[in-house]
Amino acid sequence: MMYERVLTGDRVTGKLHLGHYAGSLQTRVALQEQYETFVFLADIQALTTHFDRPQLLGQHLHEITLDYLSAGINPEKTTIFIQSMIPEIAELTLLFSMFVTVNSLRHNPTIKAESKNSSLDELYYGFLGYPVSQTADITFCKATIIPVGEDQLPHLELTRKIVRRFNELYSPILVEPKALISETPRLVGTDGNAKMSKSLGNAIELDSTKEEIIFKIRKATTDPARVHKNDPGHPDICPIFAYHGAFRSAGVTEIREGCERGTMGCSACKQLISTALDQLIEPMRELRSYYATKPKLVQEILISGTQHARSIAQETMAEVREAMSLNYFLI
Amino acid sequence: MMYERVLTGDRVTGKLHLGHYAGSLQTRVALQEQYETFVFLADIQALTTHFDRPQLLGQHLHEITLDYLSAGINPEKTTIFIQSMIPEIAELTLLFSMFVTVNSLRHNPTIKAESKNSSLDELYYGFLGYPVSQTADITFCKATIIPVGEDQLPHLELTRKIVRRFNELYSPILVEPKALISETPRLVGTDGNAKMSKSLGNAIELDSTKEEIIFKIRKATTDPARVHKNDPGHPDICPIFAYHGAFRSAGVTEIREGCERGTMGCSACKQLISTALDQLIEPMRELRSYYATKPKLVQEILISGTQHARSIAQETMAEVREAMSLNYFLI
Ligand code: SF4
Ligand code: SF4
Repeated sequence: MMYERVLTGDRVTGKLHLGHYAGSLQTRVALQEQYETFVFLADIQALTTHFDRPQLLGQHLHEITLDYLSAGINPEKTTIFIQSMIPEIAELTLLFSMFVTVNSLRHNPTIKAESKNSSLDELYYGFLGYPVSQTADITFCKATIIPVGEDQLPHLELTRKIVRRFNELYSPILVEPKALISETPRLVGTDGNAKMSKSLGNAIELDSTKEEIIFKIRKATTDPARVHKNDPGHPDICPIFAYHGAFRSAGVTEIREGCERGTMGCSACKQLISTALDQLIEPMRELRSYYATKPKLVQEILISGTQHARSIAQETMAEVREAMSLNYFLI
Repeated sequence: MMYERVLTGDRVTGKLHLGHYAGSLQTRVALQEQYETFVFLADIQALTTHFDRPQLLGQHLHEITLDYLSAGINPEKTTIFIQSMIPEIAELTLLFSMFVTVNSLRHNPTIKAESKNSSLDELYYGFLGYPVSQTADITFCKATIIPVGEDQLPHLELTRKIVRRFNELYSPILVEPKALISETPRLVGTDGNAKMSKSLGNAIELDSTKEEIIFKIRKATTDPARVHKNDPGHPDICPIFAYHGAFRSAGVTEIREGCERGTMGCSACKQLISTALDQLIEPMRELRSYYATKPKLVQEILISGTQHARSIAQETMAEVREAMSLNYFLI
């Protein structure tokens, strides 16, 4: 069997929500059973947009780690580590930056779109270099499988290009990663916005109580055409139906039919999904309350994951130094 | 007395020559008597233009170190270190890159000029970021005095701006460096080109033998108006006269007069400068032959300098992590 190593990460900008669960967490939980898996807390990448308010990074790190652990990421199977504590990632970023052109970064569609979305007056140098730094994240541990959304494919394509260029220029020691494209479409927000996002206030967090779930679902947008209970609905434009599709395997066809025929009321439909989401989150709550009372244990998980990642990074960096003839001597 | 720390460096692209000596080495030798002095071998910055041929870096490192030692840089007084062996420089580069705009880098006149000179089809990301990486070189050791040529002032101004921005954003822990502008104008090449440069083949290396000096000076361009010995000359356009000015304190006025009146012949004038240059280089040859037979000692000098720089870098990085709230825990 070929050796495979999975790497994913999250920018450390706040607690995780159902969008993360649907889009990546549940995939990671499945992948860790099959492959060596690495998950990293991207605090440096969070700085690309949050450089002026890094004070919350530490708390966010802790919360996201709790999110991971409660969602079923098993620290015995998955290496959880902190990006900024692997200096080799910064070293590789600097080395790769020497042979990556500004043009290839500027014409990357994701950078174009993100730079528009984030409404920055000006483009920051580190933000422009995101794909270079991502290449360092991936190559330091020679990850082979990168679970990504369709929208991140251009980034990964650029990473593959940088890896090939390195291997051509120096020595073929880095591994070109493969994309594992997520089948789950991006989860809509409770307000119908295409993207569930904490900053838009349309997210259901993974640490929600039953009451919070019920409240948020009750307030959620549905098909505005359904003024009366019997009006026929259009489930495909309704976030509630999207949640049924993403989180309930059974009964989805019946809900579609009931909505379209006007036999299923929105209130009942919302009750069904509230219950389902509560059932999904309930075991997470249990795991969370276990870990939340043990901050030392959570910290130890991060420390040992980061140490493990670091030791791999040091090995790779030694190989990179040798390939680039930068291995003068040891200090 | 205020604490001062001097930092300078050279890109590791080949042996040093008289241009380096006039422009910076002799200043460093003087400064080390007065201040704590750091000199670094910029192998990473050499990669901005030499990323496709790093194989010679190790040899260049050794040669430049011999140049330093023979020119009088005293390893007891000056810390000589290798840039790529200070990972904190890469870490700082990455952190600074988050809040430096691409525009401020693009509009830097030095980058504009260098990017034109180096005839790169495309601009490389690392090359664009040169001032960011330079800021990391300077701030990791909190250098306060940076000896620079007039042409490097825009770079240093950008460094000062990045330092101020860091101090505003986080905590005022970094030191804004002052420029110490070199009074020596750039040394012309033996062919009359404005810049003495190894790659232009118009340089006199610091390890030249007496014969090499005589040969290169004999072949050097003089004022083309002097066809006959008695033709009046224009010393200000003659490289030989520039060398008299740069390396001989006595007799320069007489040479100007003799040249302008047509009483001093070029051949005699060249003999004078050959002798002067040989006298300048003679003690360097002695020191060089001492160190050249002791590669272990040279390596130990680099190792201990790099270790010293590294320990300072680690202290600064700890402060930076604290200022930026990235000091979660130690691993
Ligand atoms: S019945 Fe359900 S799917 Fe249909 S509009 Fe109402 S909430 Fe949406
Ligand atoms: S006399 Fe000396 S300074 Fe005048 S042109 Fe000849 S070499 Fe140059």
